[in-house]
Amino acid sequence: MSEEKIIPYKIYLEESEMPRQWYNMRADMKNKPAPLLNKDTLKPITFEELQPVFCDELIKQELDEDTAYFDIPQEILDFYKMYRPAPLVRAYCLEKALGTPAKIYYKFEGNNTSGSHKLNSAIAQAYYAKNQGLKGVTTETGAGQWGTALSMASSYLGLDCNVYMVKCSYEQKPFRREVMRTYGASVTPSPSTTTEVGKRILEAHPGTTGSLGCAISEAIEAAGNKEGYRYVLGSVLNQVMLHQSIIGLETKAAMDKYGIDPDIIIGCAGGGSNLGGLIAPFMREKLLGNKDYRFIAVEPASCPTLTRGKYAYDYCDTGMVCPLSKMYTLGSGFIPSSSHAGGLRYHGMNSTLSQLYADGYMEATSVEQTSVFEAAQRFARVEGILPAPESSHAIKVAIDEALKCKETGEEKTILFGLTGTGYFDMFAYQRFNDGEMSDYIPTDEEIAAGLAGLPKIDL
Amino acid sequence: MSEEKIIPYKIYLEESEMPRQWYNMRADMKNKPAPLLNKDTLKPITFEELQPVFCDELIKQELDEDTAYFDIPQEILDFYKMYRPAPLVRAYCLEKALGTPAKIYYKFEGNNTSGSHKLNSAIAQAYYAKNQGLKGVTTETGAGQWGTALSMASSYLGLDCNVYMVKCSYEQKPFRREVMRTYGASVTPSPSTTTEVGKRILEAHPGTTGSLGCAISEAIEAAGNKEGYRYVLGSVLNQVMLHQSIIGLETKAAMDKYGIDPDIIIGCAGGGSNLGGLIAPFMREKLLGNKDYRFIAVEPASCPTLTRGKYAYDYCDTGMVCPLSKMYTLGSGFIPSSSHAGGLRYHGMNSTLSQLYADGYMEATSVEQTSVFEAAQRFARVEGILPAPESSHAIKVAIDEALKCKETGEEKTILFGLTGTGYFDMFAYQRFNDGEMSDYIPTDEEIAAGLAGLPKIDL
Repeated sequence: MSEEKIIPYKIYLEESEMPRQWYNMRADMKNKPAPLLNKDTLKPITFEELQPVFCDELIKQELDEDTAYFDIPQEILDFYKMYRPAPLVRAYCLEKALGTPAKIYYKFEGNNTSGSHKLNSAIAQAYYAKNQGLKGVTTETGAGQWGTALSMASSYLGLDCNVYMVKCSYEQKPFRREVMRTYGASVTPSPSTTTEVGKRILEAHPGTTGSLGCAISEAIEAAGNKEGYRYVLGSVLNQVMLHQSIIGLETKAAMDKYGIDPDIIIGCAGGGSNLGGLIAPFMREKLLGNKDYRFIAVEPASCPTLTRGKYAYDYCDTGMVCPLSKMYTLGSGFIPSSSHAGGLRYHGMNSTLSQLYADGYMEATSVEQTSVFEAAQRFARVEGILPAPESSHAIKVAIDEALKCKETGEEKTILFGLTGTGYFDMFAYQRFNDGEMSDYIPTDEEIAAGLAGLPKIDL
Repeated sequence: MSEEKIIPYKIYLEESEMPRQWYNMRADMKNKPAPLLNKDTLKPITFEELQPVFCDELIKQELDEDTAYFDIPQEILDFYKMYRPAPLVRAYCLEKALGTPAKIYYKFEGNNTSGSHKLNSAIAQAYYAKNQGLKGVTTETGAGQWGTALSMASSYLGLDCNVYMVKCSYEQKPFRREVMRTYGASVTPSPSTTTEVGKRILEAHPGTTGSLGCAISEAIEAAGNKEGYRYVLGSVLNQVMLHQSIIGLETKAAMDKYGIDPDIIIGCAGGGSNLGGLIAPFMREKLLGNKDYRFIAVEPASCPTLTRGKYAYDYCDTGMVCPLSKMYTLGSGFIPSSSHAGGLRYHGMNSTLSQLYADGYMEATSVEQTSVFEAAQRFARVEGILPAPESSHAIKVAIDEALKCKETGEEKTILFGLTGTGYFDMFAYQRFNDGEMSDYIPTDEEIAAGLAGLPKIDL
């Protein structure tokens, strides 16, 4: 047995140690996630059927459940070098403040201008679009981080970028729009009257503050209306989770370097890409039976997809123009209450994570907004980083687990994903600082109403 | 001769390689900067006279022109580990975009929640205040970065923190206030009616949007009015520049590790602390006659302290409550036009840098706002970092120098300080994006009017 190494506050991999491949969890799953279905034929969707919507290379990644490792193209590796490796931080100060014997680590993905992990997939998707000779991409954004990331990646590669931004975020975060514009993107609040589906949603729900599901529908329609454009998505899809595996691969490489092995791995869950990316290489060990880990998905109580949703085929978008995905869902018609974690306001969940959850490989829990901001403030004051509301969901549960260790005296190693910074969430912090933050938990009736809208599919 | 090493995109020092001492340029200067004077006696100010305003240990650092290296206390080193080392970045993407043979490096200080290098001195000053048993600190902030930094450091150490924020920044950056509040600080727009000097300035200049000079006066008065409080300052003073030498020391250590030697070193200059910190160990080599470097201070054309000011004794603040400092100055009554680089709107300059400039060790240049934002946008789109308006002054001149190299074919190595991020400057970027940014250069009459207010001192 070697002596325990001194763990630095922050572990940075050398450029030579950085992962050069993405990892696809599906390759090692015995129960594969159910395939995407063509919404009209109810048959597994084909490459050709997806071609009008997505870039060819990304469709291949989306449909490939056998290849475990994908080489990362050199151009993407070069872009990654601009802001990666992301540091793995030992939360010495938080541990001390909590008085816990637990060892807490977080992978911090916020040290780039997009403010989050979203850039990992944005550059990949923009690269494949550019490589296919496309002119531009359309997308949706909730909290604004994905839109910013895609704007950055598109500007870097010389692609046009049109962003549909969930209206409540657009209004709460006027400066987000300016970051995207600085990177040359156009930004439209969603639902909008620029698309047929937007008009339809506005008619059905006048005054709606929008949702990711609506914005997705609009962005898909907009891509279809323009020659040389495709739609790209910041979460939910397996291609996105593939790109995000860079988070977990770097984390595991850094931990292996110092002989650290986490007991609990925690991530916030909206569409699932950050969580899936963080846990990917650890889940591999669990899937192969090499090691056990506790994985905890944290979702907002206002949008409790895993904890109160149903595992069923559903539309990925409100306008029902997407293929059907089997996933935990609250129903594509469920419009969550306006919350400050716009990135987690999604009715569904990535299909791979859904299958893993259904098979008991992963736990899920939901937390309320005010307690999340309390955790965020506590974290900010000792760790010096102002976290995004989304990320703070993971902080909240990491603190809870560390406090349990304090009670039991266990020296567990806790890892969580700190996906981003809250610099553009100061309206939310202001509400919190002023004591005006509210919590909303959907009633059983509201949940049931959402689920009643699930498509009736008998397979 | 060894082969040229491959330079990574980002060089991070290991924890064991991080500097453990600050460096004081004055110790190696033949012509020392002129001493601070008591404004009433016109004699060099004493330790005792400064005690009501500043913490004891900081006064010692302020007055010490002989000690070259100061040990950094362990508690401060521990805090530094939370966000340092700051990366030294090779701007490969910018070089490529410019098509220059120059090699461009920047030291990026924006990867912390305060958004800038200011935290380096904030934690030091808060530490010495706490160590002296004080209850709290007062300060001013221009762009808001110093106030945020001090709020973070104070919250970490359990000190109360009262910030006077230059009114135009307070209004342009409402969310800055919320970051400070999240860290538990109180924030007052300056000039305010909470101090006598604030009331006086408001009477003389109704409708003024304030200046750093005004806010300093208010913060000093506020510290004097409260038991157990002292005033701390984010720039201008030699103590601050001492703490900021960590920037240059880390940069030089990283460059030495890879055998890189810069030809030109560029920094933006407001009060001078970031510039002085960046150049410190390089200036040492020049002062000792070991090496030559070109140092370029970049200031806004709207507040051209070095390029159009006078080297003379002046007040550091508008309210004339501070000691007198010999420095390049536009006159403490000079209120620069409202600009988006709030951190550079200061009438004076650090005394050490002033002496070095007077002695020809350093150059200075001034640039206009719109050209600065053009450079900022250009940089953001290829390097992926959204820079602060202040930092972008250095970017503008670094790009200009790199383009000169393109003309001459010279492979110069250019180093600049990227002091911070622009996440809270989106109002400014919005003006730029909308084509509504204006430039203002003071007339000769305005400069003369400011200088006419210099105290009449015959030494």
